[in-house]
Amino acid sequence: MTAQVTRTPVGIIGAGPAGLFLALLLRREGIDSVVIDSRAQGEIEGTIRAGVLEQWCADLMRELGVGERMDREGHFHEGITLQFLEERHHLNFVELTGGKQVTVYPQHDVLIDLIVKLSELGHELHFGVTDTALHDLKSDRPRISYTDADGQAREIECDFIAGCDGFHGPSRKAIPEGERAEFQKVYPFGWLGVLVDAPPSYHELIYSNHERGFALLSTRTPEIQRMYIQCDPTDDIANYPDERIWDELHARLDVPGHSITEGHIFQKGIIAMRSFVCETMRYGQLFLAGDACHIVPPTGAKGLNLAVGDVLRLSRALTRHYRHNDSAKLETYAPEALRRIWTAERYSWYMTTMLHRDPTETNFEQRIHLADLDYVTRSRAAATALAENYVGLPVEL
Amino acid sequence: MTAQVTRTPVGIIGAGPAGLFLALLLRREGIDSVVIDSRAQGEIEGTIRAGVLEQWCADLMRELGVGERMDREGHFHEGITLQFLEERHHLNFVELTGGKQVTVYPQHDVLIDLIVKLSELGHELHFGVTDTALHDLKSDRPRISYTDADGQAREIECDFIAGCDGFHGPSRKAIPEGERAEFQKVYPFGWLGVLVDAPPSYHELIYSNHERGFALLSTRTPEIQRMYIQCDPTDDIANYPDERIWDELHARLDVPGHSITEGHIFQKGIIAMRSFVCETMRYGQLFLAGDACHIVPPTGAKGLNLAVGDVLRLSRALTRHYRHNDSAKLETYAPEALRRIWTAERYSWYMTTMLHRDPTETNFEQRIHLADLDYVTRSRAAATALAENYVGLPVEL
Repeated sequence: MTAQVTRTPVGIIGAGPAGLFLALLLRREGIDSVVIDSRAQGEIEGTIRAGVLEQWCADLMRELGVGERMDREGHFHEGITLQFLEERHHLNFVELTGGKQVTVYPQHDVLIDLIVKLSELGHELHFGVTDTALHDLKSDRPRISYTDADGQAREIECDFIAGCDGFHGPSRKAIPEGERAEFQKVYPFGWLGVLVDAPPSYHELIYSNHERGFALLSTRTPEIQRMYIQCDPTDDIANYPDERIWDELHARLDVPGHSITEGHIFQKGIIAMRSFVCETMRYGQLFLAGDACHIVPPTGAKGLNLAVGDVLRLSRALTRHYRHNDSAKLETYAPEALRRIWTAERYSWYMTTMLHRDPTETNFEQRIHLADLDYVTRSRAAATALAENYVGLPVEL
Repeated sequence: MTAQVTRTPVGIIGAGPAGLFLALLLRREGIDSVVIDSRAQGEIEGTIRAGVLEQWCADLMRELGVGERMDREGHFHEGITLQFLEERHHLNFVELTGGKQVTVYPQHDVLIDLIVKLSELGHELHFGVTDTALHDLKSDRPRISYTDADGQAREIECDFIAGCDGFHGPSRKAIPEGERAEFQKVYPFGWLGVLVDAPPSYHELIYSNHERGFALLSTRTPEIQRMYIQCDPTDDIANYPDERIWDELHARLDVPGHSITEGHIFQKGIIAMRSFVCETMRYGQLFLAGDACHIVPPTGAKGLNLAVGDVLRLSRALTRHYRHNDSAKLETYAPEALRRIWTAERYSWYMTTMLHRDPTETNFEQRIHLADLDYVTRSRAAATALAENYVGLPVEL
């Protein structure tokens, strides 16, 4: 079967936050692209995922004309609460950062809004593709081959390929392993997350370091709440009947005078946690962005924002290339993006190690984390450092 | 041989910073004490040790009438320089902390000044004692037995014993091991320190994170400089001829346009590094202070200041006891001191892990430390947090 060939300036692999934002950002500059994803549209839109948008990222949603539902349905949080040694300490980000806040709006809703917008614009989005492969990356005519949802063999011929297909996608793996500079830390703990039919227990997020392990109280909608407890990442969810989950949530999150509100648990699962960076973000005409080249543990809520930061930078670099025939920003894409990525990796690692009970750590290190929490809730400078990372450091383009 | 018995309110074991400051602080309040130390006076005064005094600690020296020589001979540093990836970044503490600075004045000079003052006042200081032992700690008449420098058996009968005898002294060990809550981290690296006949290479301290390991450029006097390089703590100093030391110092500290000044190395040695806290700072009538109950790695320059903070707190508590018959502050001595101690332990651990190359760490963690350095030299909030710890957080009494 002969492949049907499409020609486009930028071939985008992956319809997650990185790929969809990139398509819309490029389109705004008059640069066309084609987006493909191995998942069905329904799967992308239906995979319920948390979302905490940094101030600039929420502003970018509005700027791109996809912020309306976010402004209507999102939650705007002034700060977070850190809980340890059975006490709660509120950090007011608005006050600490001179007015910045975070927007709690689920990632899958961000994706739905982007897909609606791109579809309205008639953008080429192909879901449910298979056999995606990258070719001729070192040439000036790289290609993406795939089979579409109808079984038709297809090929995208382009100037650049944007690898936005996440940690497990083919893009990063298309770079020879020996030429990839990779950095990884796998944490010896995971999160057991539940979705609960209940009203919010609290108006903002509560991060708790408890001797039984970390817990996070989060919210989704006025009727659905999201809660997490630290667990063994290799444990079986079957070992956690609802009663045990509530026992752990109460033990780790309740304080005198305030108990979390129970409800029907309608979804539960265990996720592992890793930090990962592939510094080789460019290989020939392939540019990686988002989870394809970096993973953060969810504690810092940085994943989505980092992905959007990458493609904002990449879209500017591509715009300069097409508009002014100037590739300087494409040349410096990786080193400049990496500075921001490592800052976020550091912050996510800091929040993760400070808040969890790592069974491989000594009692000295556990005390250090409590001392860190004590310090960050007493020192305005330390609280400001935490806050400015949480609401998002500027994307220096 | 019958022991000669001396009766005093407070028996102080150890004539280091903790013991000598405590004697002078108590004396100012009209509370008598006796100080003993196993070392000869000449050894204490001749053991050359670095000293970085926090702002409040230097102020306390002046307040106690022992600040004159420090003000004449000490160096007042406005900040420090952090060097990494071959670049230097200055942190201006005076500007970041609203006017605070640090005083570089060697610890043995602090001790000399304290001994001169106490001797002028006719205070009982006994050096070169042996066989020191603590007795009846749980009674209201604890005793210290020892043999004086002339071979005479002696005993100090007191109300309270202050254990200021460092990590290896008998005081902490007088607490049954099962009743001591101890926390420790031994670092897999040490410092090779040299004293050099040379003019200063730089007017302030330079802390360098280099791929060959940490290095510190410090100063002692206009004629003598102190420099350190990270090394294997189990290495033999014989493996470091002067030429190798200079090679390492140049590699780790030089930057284009600035090379450190060589000179005759007249002393060199290797020290191991540990973090340690014994939370059991009180046992009956025994109170521990300084290195007897906590050790910090030297990177944060906190050791001397922490010891003085402890005995300032202890002297206030004892004053309240003797003047108002109120023991409340003796009861809370340990928990209140520990909060400050753990804050300093956290800071010292942070500076140490950020600045060294730990051979047991992954490449991910090494990148995290570089990201930390990049962040702290770019963010005013993060720089302020580092600065406020370096110049010294307030001693909340």
